[in-house]
Amino acid sequence: METSHGLVETPMFMPVGTQGSVKAIEQRELVELGAQIILGNTYHLYLRPGVDVIESAGGLHGFIGWNKPILTDSGGYQIFSLTDLREIEEDGVTFRSHVDGSTHVFTPESVITIQRQLGSDVMMVLDECAPHPCDIEYAQRSNGLTIRWAERCRNAFEQDGSRYGHAQGLFGIVQGSIYREIRELSAQALVKMDFDGYAIGGLAVGEPVEQMYEITEFCEALLPREKPRYLMGVGTPQNLLESIERGMDMFDCVLPTRNGRNANLFTRTGSLNLRNAVHKTDLSPVDPECTCYTCKNFSRAYLRHLFQVKEILALQLATIHNLSFYLWLMREAHKAIHQRRFAEWKHSILSGLRTGQVGIQ
Amino acid sequence: METSHGLVETPMFMPVGTQGSVKAIEQRELVELGAQIILGNTYHLYLRPGVDVIESAGGLHGFIGWNKPILTDSGGYQIFSLTDLREIEEDGVTFRSHVDGSTHVFTPESVITIQRQLGSDVMMVLDECAPHPCDIEYAQRSNGLTIRWAERCRNAFEQDGSRYGHAQGLFGIVQGSIYREIRELSAQALVKMDFDGYAIGGLAVGEPVEQMYEITEFCEALLPREKPRYLMGVGTPQNLLESIERGMDMFDCVLPTRNGRNANLFTRTGSLNLRNAVHKTDLSPVDPECTCYTCKNFSRAYLRHLFQVKEILALQLATIHNLSFYLWLMREAHKAIHQRRFAEWKHSILSGLRTGQVGIQ
Repeated sequence: METSHGLVETPMFMPVGTQGSVKAIEQRELVELGAQIILGNTYHLYLRPGVDVIESAGGLHGFIGWNKPILTDSGGYQIFSLTDLREIEEDGVTFRSHVDGSTHVFTPESVITIQRQLGSDVMMVLDECAPHPCDIEYAQRSNGLTIRWAERCRNAFEQDGSRYGHAQGLFGIVQGSIYREIRELSAQALVKMDFDGYAIGGLAVGEPVEQMYEITEFCEALLPREKPRYLMGVGTPQNLLESIERGMDMFDCVLPTRNGRNANLFTRTGSLNLRNAVHKTDLSPVDPECTCYTCKNFSRAYLRHLFQVKEILALQLATIHNLSFYLWLMREAHKAIHQRRFAEWKHSILSGLRTGQVGIQ
Repeated sequence: METSHGLVETPMFMPVGTQGSVKAIEQRELVELGAQIILGNTYHLYLRPGVDVIESAGGLHGFIGWNKPILTDSGGYQIFSLTDLREIEEDGVTFRSHVDGSTHVFTPESVITIQRQLGSDVMMVLDECAPHPCDIEYAQRSNGLTIRWAERCRNAFEQDGSRYGHAQGLFGIVQGSIYREIRELSAQALVKMDFDGYAIGGLAVGEPVEQMYEITEFCEALLPREKPRYLMGVGTPQNLLESIERGMDMFDCVLPTRNGRNANLFTRTGSLNLRNAVHKTDLSPVDPECTCYTCKNFSRAYLRHLFQVKEILALQLATIHNLSFYLWLMREAHKAIHQRRFAEWKHSILSGLRTGQVGIQ
């Protein structure tokens, strides 16, 4: 995927920088680990520091000191998570800030304007992410709204140009819950609007993992092959491999960073909980095959100690390792795809992940 | 100062790594900033992870992944801070752990053994740091004990050799509160024992800053010129310059790291509180003359935002800058001393520090 801030090789995992920082890691470290694109959350950045502050810095790239690509969501997902604090109407969504309770409105047009002000390389349409489970009537009504909002976003995108002279793309989001017929309507309507890429939303919200794969596969077949496909909010290493096999190109998830901060480290043989006493005098690295700063310089025993005594360095080193693992996995997937041995490679990785004692679901 | 883990150029500020980590900064970043020696706290490391764990890693250097010099304190200062949890007797001090309430005893001999197990390059004797204010009778009694303990540490040091094959030095600690006559007794007794260096303890505990300088100057004259002098727990940039002028070589203090974590950043013109609204859209770096990663890449506005939204990166970037400032100050002092223009240089730095709006005391 080409952007004004550089090429993104797919498949790609996007570290999540909700508030303008990928938690507990420095921007130069993200570059060192091979991160090619990060995600910012429009809802959070709109509330703090506020779009005016980011605009005064020439956009989000300048404000946060990151000159590679950035994708911003539309804020929809966060707002719909504020179950008791928002009201959805045809025009848009009214919500109360989780910070100070103040009232705000996001419309399809305003989220485009905000993302123009942020200057992200990839912008997302405003959609409603239907909850799971939801009945078919709700999913149908919700999807109708999501399609009308996508159309309004598309129009606003044409009329409201780039602020900083660099190109920005706009992705549509396929919704429709677990219902194939609604997913199909959604994908067809969006494809007609000709977006720069297509996300599959409304998955990884509590449905069984097999259903997630099935819907992903179903949607994928409805999307143009030449455009990037982004599976939102997914997932575990296993989820990523299964979804890549089903044609997905881009992913974002807080799992590697959040798990890292909870002492849960991903390895080529599964995962480790560094709080376990078994690591107390374990001088081996988290993952002997990993080449990240953490694994090259520190032992499980030291990391366990840092977690036990609540040192901030524990969060830093765990984040470096977990993101290193995810980005390594994407690079290896990229290689395997180009060498036409993805299925074989995936099998060997999944076998490795199953050998560890502690699985992650 | 030469050690088995390399040369330490003086004057030198030692970042404080209480629990085996200088808070919120990576070991490679300490090296990048020019840190030549760090401090570890025997009391904390003894409790967690425990000396057995560190010994199994071949000592503290190996355990924490730091191959430059380390100085460890004797644990005395921390224990005496546990006012209600410790009892001092001739043989040593009995204390209750702040972690789990368990009872432990430190004697002059045991703190030498522990520091041998830690493998620090510079070890400190067990002393009593008298509180401020304290009457002359208390200071005399306390100093008598401190001298007897120093002698016992000196003997244990001879009998209990290095565990890991590298040389370790032992520093004495001059006590005596604000009383010149006791400071003199202390210094004379310690100098007779011929330590590898001498610390001045019991200052920066609440006495007026002028008294601190006066006692420092008084003690300095009693110590051998060819041995390093370490002023414990000091201090602000101003304190450091005044103390260097009075012959001090080594310093440790949590001020740069702790202040950084509280959004208080040192600059060449004083200091900044990054929480202040005045920085909201300030695109200038924390200190325009600073070459650290933080100042080269990020604005005050971004750092302020990170503090406002409680991102861990705020702590990381502030720590990098503040330690960078302290270590720069020490390098410049070193240069000025060698060029025989210290007084002039010090005057220009102090004038600069006074131009800022927000002073730090």
